[in-house]
Parts: sequence; structure tokens; C-alpha cells
Amino acid sequence: MAKLTETEPMRVVEETPAYWRVVFDYPPFNIVDADVFQALQDLLVRMDTTESLRVVVFESAIPDFYLAHFDLTGKLGNIMTAIGASGLPILMDTFVRLTKSPVVSIAKIRGCARGVSSEFVLACDMRFASRENTRLGHPELGVGLHPGGGGTERLPHLVGRGRALEIVLSANDFDGDSAERYGYINRSLPDAELDGFVEALARRIASFDRRALAAAKNLVNQVSLPPADRLLDAFTSFGAALTWPEAQHRIQAVVERGLQRDASFERAWPEVLGNLVATEKQAESDDKQN
Amino acid sequence: MAKLTETEPMRVVEETPAYWRVVFDYPPFNIVDADVFQALQDLLVRMDTTESLRVVVFESAIPDFYLAHFDLTGKLGNIMTAIGASGLPILMDTFVRLTKSPVVSIAKIRGCARGVSSEFVLACDMRFASRENTRLGHPELGVGLHPGGGGTERLPHLVGRGRALEIVLSANDFDGDSAERYGYINRSLPDAELDGFVEALARRIASFDRRALAAAKNLVNQVSLPPADRLLDAFTSFGAALTWPEAQHRIQAVVERGLQRDASFERAWPEVLGNLVATEKQAESDDKQN
Amino acid sequence: MAKLTETEPMRVVEETPAYWRVVFDYPPFNIVDADVFQALQDLLVRMDTTESLRVVVFESAIPDFYLAHFDLTGKLGNIMTAIGASGLPILMDTFVRLTKSPVVSIAKIRGCARGVSSEFVLACDMRFASRENTRLGHPELGVGLHPGGGGTERLPHLVGRGRALEIVLSANDFDGDSAERYGYINRSLPDAELDGFVEALARRIASFDRRALAAAKNLVNQVSLPPADRLLDAFTSFGAALTWPEAQHRIQAVVERGLQRDASFERAWPEVLGNLVATEKQAESDDKQN
Repeated sequence: MAKLTETEPMRVVEETPAYWRVVFDYPPFNIVDADVFQALQDLLVRMDTTESLRVVVFESAIPDFYLAHFDLTGKLGNIMTAIGASGLPILMDTFVRLTKSPVVSIAKIRGCARGVSSEFVLACDMRFASRENTRLGHPELGVGLHPGGGGTERLPHLVGRGRALEIVLSANDFDGDSAERYGYINRSLPDAELDGFVEALARRIASFDRRALAAAKNLVNQVSLPPADRLLDAFTSFGAALTWPEAQHRIQAVVERGLQRDASFERAWPEVLGNLVATEKQAESDDKQN
Repeated sequence: MAKLTETEPMRVVEETPAYWRVVFDYPPFNIVDADVFQALQDLLVRMDTTESLRVVVFESAIPDFYLAHFDLTGKLGNIMTAIGASGLPILMDTFVRLTKSPVVSIAKIRGCARGVSSEFVLACDMRFASRENTRLGHPELGVGLHPGGGGTERLPHLVGRGRALEIVLSANDFDGDSAERYGYINRSLPDAELDGFVEALARRIASFDRRALAAAKNLVNQVSLPPADRLLDAFTSFGAALTWPEAQHRIQAVVERGLQRDASFERAWPEVLGNLVATEKQAESDDKQN
Repeated sequence: MAKLTETEPMRVVEETPAYWRVVFDYPPFNIVDADVFQALQDLLVRMDTTESLRVVVFESAIPDFYLAHFDLTGKLGNIMTAIGASGLPILMDTFVRLTKSPVVSIAKIRGCARGVSSEFVLACDMRFASRENTRLGHPELGVGLHPGGGGTERLPHLVGRGRALEIVLSANDFDGDSAERYGYINRSLPDAELDGFVEALARRIASFDRRALAAAKNLVNQVSLPPADRLLDAFTSFGAALTWPEAQHRIQAVVERGLQRDASFERAWPEVLGNLVATEKQAESDDKQN
């Protein structure tokens, strides 16, 4: 099935047979929709069947957006319902297969990465972020939902229960240094050093043997991946939450304010989440008075 | 059954229907005895049955003492023996129900919080502490006991085995910044910023939907709470330790030196624990020479 | 069975009946071979049967080497095959028994500690390291192997999956401060303060009761030690990896360059691992051109 180049949400740069860069380039904001998941599914097949490949670095071509967040305007295709190779729904299948791939994955983060995008980087083997230009977080609570793609399962192992609850329940952004201090990412680096650091690490890993890399990663996975039934529980609960009236109401409110349309709102929208309903009530009250 | 106001160890300030502050105010040092647990039990019922409530912040009205520690003079009522709603003894039941409550709990820590009080903040969903005025730790080993209210079960998940063993086996205090670096608390903040930070966070969480908050917290709990049988083992072992002659001896020694009586000793008593028995032996030896 | 003093890889300094220092002194580099494991096995028996003992500090007498790494020239005796008291092979048995001993163990790290030596310090109850003079890491991937003595099982609990994968897959050194930031060690201290800090901590712990220390450590262990079957899987996989031709090839390459022979190479060898095969290919290509 042929695909139009202009709709491809990402491109693969084969730096060497052992080291690829995958560049998200899906204007205007790298919103995560069904096409992004389809492209990741295709990539996973290529990764696992390319014997020369050792490591993939995921980065963005759009300055302030790594991957913005889950599409809240409905372009979800079948990713919530169709079942992938792991036996889990496509959305979760994509993340689970990335964690279990013999190929090493590194997220090189610049810009916004929220909700499902945070879950994408949590499914990568390592996370490095720009000190000056990172907004990482889980705003789901602010729109009446909760994380459903592994965030509630992967964060506690990385940052402990207290910080996981803060990240999830505050629905707020974390900058690079805060994310490093919490253990959310491996390391925050000055923006000018980020590319060099990740490049050197990726080329070093690319020089090692695929069999040894796969064995080591598998051993670490055995004691660190969340069980599939926990992931599925969260996913199912998330699917239900999408139908809650209070969630629908909040989602509508942020979309009306400019989500997925207005760049400056898209950049900073978690800031307003604590006043979303209150402001609206105030506005209603003002309306009635007029 | 009416209660005399003057014996209430804490008061509830209903800032909004969704956000309460609970203020420990039990002079002179907020010692944790049976009355504190009874008040927490009553609070838990109110929290779980108040549908408008989203978040509770726990703080202290006594400058240098958040909650001092477990009462070592015997005012324990039935908290070690009576069984609470969870099927666990009251002491542990209180902590377990706090972790599982649909209401979010935040510990805002100023002053001393040791032993069972550390276990109380570990049972809260998040912990923020004053950089200048925090003494958090587990002095139990220094009085011949070990933690029995969840410390040995909750710390390893938060800080890893090595740091958990240091905290527990050193029986020493940790200041705010050390506690943050270890992951013992979410964050240490300058004292002047602590109230504002926690207030903003609590009001933000209070603006979200109770159903979504409860679902998210429950998902995180599934992968981060210690199993009940581990908690019960520690509790049972702690009950036995209270009867050990060497523990009785050490407890008597710190009580004689001024614990629960002398404010300056109460503030800094873990400092002497490394010399408690040695000093006593020296004193005995000096006595014999005179 | 008499042993020649000059071949003893470590000596025990009994500071007090409750506190011992164990000093690795096995020139030139404290390479971990069968003799080191035999000495540790003997020590474990002494530790567990000396009722007065509370705490053991492990340190090195050789300035730049704590314990260098696993012997890659074959002096492994029966540590991969003979079964120890725990039912696990001697190498793993040594580490597992150290974690479960009623005696508290503290690693005081100065110099290089790589691979199996990192696994030794990970099996100690606490780890403190010199800020100026620590090179801690897992270079196994760089020689075509993977960790086999518990590194892949213990690191994820301490540092989370992402940082564990970085440590293991990058095969690079971590200095004291980086290791502290990641949670790999308890704390990094200025070299001039390290001895005093550890000495004070050890003497404090030594003043506590053995029964309480053992009970507390056991409770922490219940929720923080990796299961034996995971440890055995890693060990078995490591044994197989030793026979892989690509591993044999890489090991030969580092031994030819000076490993276990040349002090300056031994100090810094992980630096070359990213170019080990590439450089060799270049050299072969150069040879052909000549």
C-alpha cells in the first residue's frame, strides 16, 4: 500500500547500518495520532528484522515540540481497539514491543512531550533531555482523564510512588533538570551538548555486539518491566475515562482555547489546567450577570 | 462520645469543600500516641465519605516538631492490638487506608519527624519539606528496636535498598536537601517558599475530578504499594522487639535523658544514640571508681 | 589447610569486636579471581559466626584500584561451577550471602571498581565513594559479554530501568558524583572526608544491638532483593557468553592492549571500548594496504 510522503510523520536516517536516527516531523506540533502509531509499528518491524541494527535515537525536527500529546480531536483510527503482535491493543503494543526489542532505543528530548508522548519516552530504553528546552509531563488529570499508555505503571519504578503521584496528579510540566532530579529522565544536558552526548553514546553502543546487547537488555527487563495485566488495566480504564462527561467537558474546553491549533497555547497549556473549570464557572456567572 | 477540645491532637481547616488542611497541634511536641491515631482514624472516615473532597495537606502548628515520634512512655492504647477496617492493627490500618484513600494526601514537613512519624509521611501520597527546618529519620535502631509501621517496606521502593538500609541502620536524621537527594521526600524547598508551593499544588489538584484522581492514584498504587503480608510481618516483629530487654534498657536511657520532656533533647536526640550504651558503661565504670 | 601470607588477597583489621575493616591488598590491581572469592567465602563464615560483630567496611590498600574487575586471563578456579552454601554457584553465592548476612556491610570506594567489582559493591548494604577518585561501571558489553553477578538484577531497583540500561549498555565509567546522582551509590564525598564519614557511621552502627540490626536488614531485604531465579538466569547466560567467539575476540583484544598488565591502560580501559573492533578493522585494512 503506497503512502504519500507528505503524510509520513517521521523519517529514518540510517547513520550507519548499526545506528539509525528517527526524526519526528509532523507539523505543526507532532501530535500523536493513528498515523504516528502506524509509522512506529512499521518501524518496529524494520528494527527487529534488520540484523545489523543496534541502536535507534528518537528526536524531533520541530523546535519546540518533541511529540506534543495524544490527539484530542479524534484522529485515533483503530489504535485503541485493534490488537497488535504482542496481543495488546496497538497503542500499548507499540510501547511494549519497543521495550522488548533487541534494538536499543534512546529518546533525545527537545520541546514538549506530554501524556502519551511522555509514555513513549518512558518506553524508550534511555531518556536524555535539553536543559533549556524540555516540558515533560502528564496533563491527563487536567482534562479529566488519567494516563493510559503505561505512565502510571512505568513512573513509580523510575521515580518512586511519591514523585510518580506528584507527576501524574499535578498534571504539570517538568523541565529538564527537575525531570533528572526526579529520575524521570536519565540526564538533563545543556542544549548545546545534547546532540554530541547522545551521538557519542549511540555510536559507542552501535559498536557492541547485538547478541550481548539483547541479552543484557532482556535481563534488565526481567526485573524492571511492569506486568502486562497492569498495563492493560490502565489502558482499559483510560478507554472508559474518555467517555466520562466531565472529561469530555474539559477536553472541549482546552480544544476551544486553542489546543492543536494555537502554537503559543499548545506550548504552555498545562498552565491553565488548574483554573479550567473555575474560570469557566466564573465566565458562566459573568454571562448570567450580563 | 464527646471529646474535650483541649485533647484533640489535630484540627481540620476546610479551606474549600475540595481542599482541607489538617494541622497537628498537640503540645508540647506532637508525640504520636493513641489519641493521634484515633484522630487519624476519625479523619479517614470523614475523608472517604466527603464527596467534595480532593486533597488534604498535613502540617504542624508547633514550630520545631512536625510529629515527633512514637510515644515511648506507654500511651499506646489499643493501636497495637485492635483491628481496623482494613483487617490490620490500628497503627498499620491507619497508614494503609491513607495510601488507598481516593483523597490525595500531602505532607508539608517542618521540624522533627522521626520513626512512626516518618512512616506517616511515607504513607502520604507526596512529601514536601522545609530546607532549613527538617529532621526526618528512623532512630528506632538506636533504641534497640526497628521500624514497624511500614518504613522498612516503603523506603526501599523510594530510595533503593542501599539508601533504605543507611536510613534505617544509621538511625540518624536527614535534613531536607539530603532527604530530597535520596528520594525520601519529593522535594526540599526554602522555608519561605514551602507554604506557597504546597498551597498552589493542593488547589490545582482540588480543581480536578475526584473520579479521575481516584483512578490514577489506584493505578499507581497497584505497582507501588508494599504487600500487606510484608507490612504485617514488620509490625509483628516490631511488637516483639518492644519486649526485648536491650530495647527496654535503651528506651529507659533516652527517657531518663529527657525524651518527651526536654525540648532541646527532643529536638536532637538521635545525635546521642551512637554513644548511648558506651557512655552508660563509662558512667558505670566511673561510678565504680568513685 | 595452611595458606601462604603473600597470596592472601585481603586482610581483616578488627577495629573493635563489633567493627572490622576488610582491606583488599592484592597487587598490582586487586583483580577479582578465584582467590578473592575464596577469601570472601572464608570471611562470610567468620562474619556470621562472630556474635560480637555488627559491621564490616570493605576498602582497598591500592590507591587507584578498589577491585579492578573479573580476571579475564582465566584464573577462575571453580567459582563458576562449584556450589556454595546458598545452593548457588560460588560467585553468586558469595554476593547473595553478603546481602543476607546479619552483619552490615559498607563499601568504601576509592579507585576503579568495574564489572564483577561493581557487583560486589552492589551486594554490600551501603556504598560510599570518593568524589575525586572513583571509576565505577559495567564494561562487560565492551568485551562482548554482559553482567552476570547480579548487576542487571540489582541496578534497576536502585537507579530505575533507564539508568540501569545506560550503565550496562554504555559500558562506561561513572565518577562519584554521577554515581550518587543516579542512585548507584549512597553518597559521593570529598576524598578527604570519606574515611571520617564511613568510620563514624560504622562505629555508630557497631554500637547498636545485633538482633535489631539483623531484624531490620531482613525486613528491608524482603522487599528489595532480586529473586534467586533471576540471579541464576543472569549467571547462566553470562557463563554461555564467555564462550561466544565475538566475546573471546574482544577479550583477547583488551588483554593484548595491556589489561591486567599495564597500570595506565588498566586505569582507563573502558575509554577504548567504543573503538575496539573499529580500530582493529582499520588496522587490518591498513595492514592489507601495506
